[in-house]
This record gives sequence, structure tokens and C-alpha cells, in this order.
Amino acid sequence: MSLTNRQLRLKTRPEGLVQRENFDLVETEVPELKDGEVLVRTLYISMDPTNRVWMRDIPQYLPPVAIGETMRALGLGRVVASRSPRYAEGDLVQGITGWQDYLVLHQDTPGYVRLPADPGIPLPTLLGAAGMSGITAYYGMTDIAPVQAGETLVVSAAAGSVGSIAGQIGKIMGARVIGIAGGADKCRYLVDELGFDAAVDYKAADFKQQLKVATPDGVHVNFENVGGEVMKAVLGRMNIGGRVALCGLIAGYNSGEKPSDDFSPFIMKRLTMRGFLVLDYTKTKEAVHAITGWIREGKLKTEETVAEGLENAPVVLNRLFDGSHRGKLVLHVAD
Amino acid sequence: MSLTNRQLRLKTRPEGLVQRENFDLVETEVPELKDGEVLVRTLYISMDPTNRVWMRDIPQYLPPVAIGETMRALGLGRVVASRSPRYAEGDLVQGITGWQDYLVLHQDTPGYVRLPADPGIPLPTLLGAAGMSGITAYYGMTDIAPVQAGETLVVSAAAGSVGSIAGQIGKIMGARVIGIAGGADKCRYLVDELGFDAAVDYKAADFKQQLKVATPDGVHVNFENVGGEVMKAVLGRMNIGGRVALCGLIAGYNSGEKPSDDFSPFIMKRLTMRGFLVLDYTKTKEAVHAITGWIREGKLKTEETVAEGLENAPVVLNRLFDGSHRGKLVLHVAD
Repeated sequence: MSLTNRQLRLKTRPEGLVQRENFDLVETEVPELKDGEVLVRTLYISMDPTNRVWMRDIPQYLPPVAIGETMRALGLGRVVASRSPRYAEGDLVQGITGWQDYLVLHQDTPGYVRLPADPGIPLPTLLGAAGMSGITAYYGMTDIAPVQAGETLVVSAAAGSVGSIAGQIGKIMGARVIGIAGGADKCRYLVDELGFDAAVDYKAADFKQQLKVATPDGVHVNFENVGGEVMKAVLGRMNIGGRVALCGLIAGYNSGEKPSDDFSPFIMKRLTMRGFLVLDYTKTKEAVHAITGWIREGKLKTEETVAEGLENAPVVLNRLFDGSHRGKLVLHVAD
Repeated sequence: MSLTNRQLRLKTRPEGLVQRENFDLVETEVPELKDGEVLVRTLYISMDPTNRVWMRDIPQYLPPVAIGETMRALGLGRVVASRSPRYAEGDLVQGITGWQDYLVLHQDTPGYVRLPADPGIPLPTLLGAAGMSGITAYYGMTDIAPVQAGETLVVSAAAGSVGSIAGQIGKIMGARVIGIAGGADKCRYLVDELGFDAAVDYKAADFKQQLKVATPDGVHVNFENVGGEVMKAVLGRMNIGGRVALCGLIAGYNSGEKPSDDFSPFIMKRLTMRGFLVLDYTKTKEAVHAITGWIREGKLKTEETVAEGLENAPVVLNRLFDGSHRGKLVLHVAD
């Protein structure tokens, strides 16, 4: 029986927000499996700011997605046919599925993780707190810029997939944690549900003043996901010797015009900034073990926003930038 | 006998280059010494990019010099009268002398170093390679962003007081050292006289291409004094995991308009940047000992450009920015 695979292929590079028209929805026939290959049905696709960067023809840590290529994205799928001794039908597979219904995967391709058919954790959480987002937060907080008990940590995009976990790990480490998020609802969520010490609304007219009030002892560590004006305000509150874990600069991902950054505070305040990418951490067992432990103990709350339909991927991705989601944003493609 | 002290007091904050008219040259009578005080005759004044920053009313690591205040500057003077048991007439004193002929110093004022009447090192060198400039280079290279033997180090403003020492220390540490300087003369000086492996002229039309050719293995460490477009080009050549010792951003010191910096490469290449100030190193004996040792062994070459006349301080300072000096720029005030 032949299967049809829908693929979203990059047609033109978006300017600003992503449009449906930037992609071709192409239907192709799934090829016969060869020895060593498995067929994976995409179940959930992870929606990440880095996807937007991959669409841009600029120097970056991976090659940009080429025009005509199926959009690259992390996802979670189920093995529906296998000609590999290493994969059984029903196994879950995590890795680059791309924006498509099916993936033909060779068993030797690096970067894919096999999970049992029932991993004991909701599938969207596997892409969020217990997946790349949580692992990113974990290494940012434990390796890149650890915070000491009693110090002040400021996390931007704090209601997002990485920020919400980074902030909670900061609380577990004993820090005073301030989250920056857009709107009163998200700010309430950070304080009332995630246990942040305070939250500051970057959309508020008095944002800088709010941030000042929330950080009476200054800022020792900045877990930065946003960049631009938000980061500038946080740098303005940093203490001498402060540390920045530079995880993301989402404020500049949509536009060709990068926000103007400023290195001056790094001298004036003797700051250290370390940029990092989760893909440099190849052995993530420690992180996943710690995170799933905290989830079980109730110390780490997870949340996902689930959108529907492969064909909607381009427009769903924009929700990362308009603030209309909370926690991890995933796209549900199939059951 | 009464003595007259000339002081250059900040009258208006300069825009762009410093003008004589930004300062009042005021003559005052030197007051009688009280118990515990010494009178210091200024001999040499250190001309530093940070002086220009102190004239600006922006957040910085020390308060800006106030309107009407004598310009703050590091210098070297000789004790000409003493009512302190800790200082003898003839002793040398290093510290903030300011832009003036005489300083009345209380023996308990922190930040001043007493040197013997004959320190065995030329006085301008005491303000340069064996002073703050050399100490800055030393800690930048040994503590902030050490370079490993065989790695590539790029130093900007490499013919200047700090850069010329940082590059030579890099050579002592076994690195391949590339200097960035303005003009063919300075580039030749770096290679032929200081032993740099290569030098690149930032004023050349093909600067970026030259830098690329000079760094076939990329850049592991950037000792940065300039910022702006020069630093952007170096960041473009950094290897994954590269380190930046952020010492200065002289490209932006003259203007209210800061050059637009860009944090993106710090994520893409997982870079670490540490800003630093030499004033955080309070015990500098190790540095001075190492530097004077290297000078004696002929491993470290020093150079000073000596300008004349206290009254010329405002315009001499501009030479830091027009590139018309080499090594340490000092102002000779008296013998």
C-alpha cells in the first residue's frame, strides 16, 4: 500500500513574520524502505525560535534551510515500519523530523533518540520540559551561568518553553528569581503558578521602573532569551561581576534589521557573557534525569500549548513571536 | 614661598574630539600642608582612552568628572614637600594626579603607590608597559582570556599601549599573534620590531580579506580594545568556543552615537566574553614583576610617545583616537 507524505518545502525566505506563501505544500509518495531504514510517522513537531533563524540566509550554527528543502524541525514520531534490528514498530523516535508527515530514517543517522512506545511522560512534554527546551535551561543554569543561593536571577521570555524551566531551576538552586514576560496574565502565571519571586511586564510603559523595583539587590545572573531592549534593561541592572547565559536573541530573529546591541556595560560592570547551544551537550542523560525527577517531585511545573495540523506550521511558528502561547509550543500532526 | 598650581578644569563636556575650550586653565595657590600631607609635583601624565569616557555624563565605572572639577588622570609625580613620615622628599608617587601641576595628597588616600626616587626604569615606561597599561595587558592575557600555545590571538589597537604588550605576552605564551593597527608603518612595526606573526591594517579597503588571510585557523582569543567594525570583523573570524577579553571600546568613546554591536555571534559560535578593568586587580606585584623581568630579558619591547606641556593635555588626548602615536602616550609636565 502506498503512503502519501506531505512536506512543507521552503519556497521563499520570509521577511518579518512567516507566511504560508513562503512554503510549498508538496505531496510525494513514501519510498520503499531499504535495509537498515525505518519509516517514522510524525506525531508532534517542536516549534522553536531557531526554526525562524534557519529560514534566513545568514551565517549561523547550521546551514540555512535551502530553497526547495523540507523545513528542518525537531519532532517526535512513531515507527510504523522497520527494516532495522534497532527499531521496533511502535517505538518513539525523537530528532529532526522536519515539517512533514513521514520520515525515512536510516538507523545509523546520528542525532536521533529511540524512546520506548510508552515513555511515561506526555508526548508534548518530551519535546518541552523533558526535551530540548528543558535540557537547554538545565545546562544554561548549571554549566553556563550557575546562580548561587541568595543571588538574583532574571530570566527573559520567562513564560516560554526554556525560560519557564530556567526560572524554576533557579528557584530550586535557591535564587531570587524575576521573570520578564509580556502581559499581566503571563506575569501572574509566573508568580502564582511557577513560584517566581516577581514578574515584570516588558510591554508596560514603566517596564524599566518595574524591573528596578523587582531587583533591589541588582542582578547577578541573566538567563537571556530575547536580546534587544529587554536585554538592555537587564544589563542596566546587572551588578559588577554579573554573568549572562546567552541562550537566545528572539527580538532579532524575524527581521533583517538586528537590534543595536551594546558591549559597553560588559566593561563598565566587568560582566561575563557566554553564548551556548544545547546541541553542544551530547550526553544529556544527567539533565533529563534531573528534570524528570523534579517534575515527579512537583518542583518543576510544565506546560505546553498544542496547535493542530502540519499545514499550519508556518503560521503557528509566528506564535513564538506574538506572545500568544505559554510554555512549550508544539504542533500536533497525528495521533 | 607660595607656589602656583595650574589646573585644567572641565568647563563643558566635549562632543566628538576634545577641544581646548572644553577646559578652563585655572591658576590657584598651593595651600599649606597639614600633618599627614605631602605635596607632589606632577612629572608625567598618562593619556588614556578612559579619560575621554570620564568626560562623558554616562553610566560608567567611576563617576564622570563633574563640570568645574580638575580633570582626573593617572600620573607620576615627585614629592617636593612632606609632612608625612611615610613619604620623603624626592620619592616618586604614582596615582591619580589629575591634569594639574601639583597635588596635595594625604598619606592615607588609597590608590597611590610610593616608588623610590630612582626606580631603575624610565619614568614614561612606569606609566606604560611597567604601569597600568602593561598590568592591564598582563591580566587580560593571563586571567581574563588566556591563550594556549599554538592558538591564534588577535589584538586590536595592537600598536597602542595595552595592545602592544598584550600581543607580546601572547607571543611569550606561544600563540600565533595577529595585530590590527592603522597604517602600513604601524603594521610593519608590529611584525618587524615586536615580533607579531602578522599585522592587518584596519584602514585598508580589503581589511576583512587581510584578516581572513592572516587567520587561516580562525581566531581562538580576541584581546579587544576597539569595538565597532574592527571587532565585528574579528568576531566573524572567531572559532567555536572562542574567548574575548573585552578591554576597551575606543571606537565609541568620542561620540554620543555608539557603534551598533551584535550579540548574535556569541550564540552561533558559543563565545565567551569577559569585560574587565585593571582597577579590580589590587595586588599587581606579580604582574609588575613578570613584566619588568621580560623587559630586562629583552622579550618585551616598550615604546612611549612623549608630548609636552600640561596646557596641551586636551589636544594631546585626541592623539589616542587619530592614531598619531605608538605605544604609550604620556604628557611630560616637569622634570
